[in-house]
Amino acid sequence: MSGTLEFWFEFASTYTYVAAMRVEEAARREGIALVWKPFLLGPLFKRQGWDDSPYNLNPVRGRYMWRDVARLCEKHGLPFQRPSRFPRNSLLAARIACAAQGHEWLPEFARQVFRINFVEDRDIADEEILAELLRSCGEDPGAWLARARSSEGKERLRAETEKAWELGIFGSPSFVTDTEVFWGGDRMEDAFAWHRRGGMDATRIG
Amino acid sequence: MSGTLEFWFEFASTYTYVAAMRVEEAARREGIALVWKPFLLGPLFKRQGWDDSPYNLNPVRGRYMWRDVARLCEKHGLPFQRPSRFPRNSLLAARIACAAQGHEWLPEFARQVFRINFVEDRDIADEEILAELLRSCGEDPGAWLARARSSEGKERLRAETEKAWELGIFGSPSFVTDTEVFWGGDRMEDAFAWHRRGGMDATRIG
Repeated sequence: MSGTLEFWFEFASTYTYVAAMRVEEAARREGIALVWKPFLLGPLFKRQGWDDSPYNLNPVRGRYMWRDVARLCEKHGLPFQRPSRFPRNSLLAARIACAAQGHEWLPEFARQVFRINFVEDRDIADEEILAELLRSCGEDPGAWLARARSSEGKERLRAETEKAWELGIFGSPSFVTDTEVFWGGDRMEDAFAWHRRGGMDATRIG
Repeated sequence: MSGTLEFWFEFASTYTYVAAMRVEEAARREGIALVWKPFLLGPLFKRQGWDDSPYNLNPVRGRYMWRDVARLCEKHGLPFQRPSRFPRNSLLAARIACAAQGHEWLPEFARQVFRINFVEDRDIADEEILAELLRSCGEDPGAWLARARSSEGKERLRAETEKAWELGIFGSPSFVTDTEVFWGGDRMEDAFAWHRRGGMDATRIG
């Protein structure tokens, strides 16, 4: 096993909330070096022909998703409250996370954003809320908000989202090891297993 | 634990091939009484606004699916050959399976149909092939083909497909216990667990 395993996440995604709360501990147990990779799902949805979450566009699928996520949260002992607005605007939160890539506090910040959205049902686009989260991570909100909103900060998230698409990512969460993409929290263990065996056997299935 | 757990399946579905090859043994290990429920996905796709498999309509999603299914088959030790035509016409096979509901040979017949499609890359709409499978199950092909093609046989599959939709099914495979729907082979264990605890706790998550 070598290299890192990437966890690509969109803050507005329900299933990603479930995965985000579990992935850090699970990776640590396996001795896997995890890298948190924020991106925006909206532009990738647009490229698939959707101008909204497929769960809103397809009500049958949506109804199932809400039930499924509630069941998953119950299974994993996670609190959950269906947000009064879905999907929430994750742009600023994602820009902050993108600027904070590689910083030790990013995973905790990310989990807090998910908690705001899916447990507290509050607006993750609210600058005051994000500032409060940054402070709780011991960081200077003003500095990070400025970084997030700078041209460089905006460009960085755009570039990461583009990279996600180039990797073949179309949904969140996605796990990437080498160039192998696994989509969905229910593929986490498969991604870990693939990563552990080092990708050498990837050629076996062509 | 009481009652049965239903396995709703569409013969043309790749992920359902993987689940169909595993579900019987897995249910037996858990002491769960499994009922095989054939239905057609096409009419349910139509109601979701699609005139083809979403994997064909969305090439990025499709490319991922083929890779994912190949990985799953490798993981579970199942042979797999990407069919030269996808999705295949499953109407006649589903009508036969529908007519054969409750018969002991149905699961074996169903697995053989999946094998024809996803291992041998042959046409599951071919009457000769289906007749051969019926013979290998010890059944009289002429009688079952006649039943499948009778007005009653046609109506039965129509009614089952309608029932699937009413249950909230929109994809294949789906597991149903009581009125609880679990979609996807990766929800098999969750469906089993839900079934075991008897649905009583269903109220806990509303």
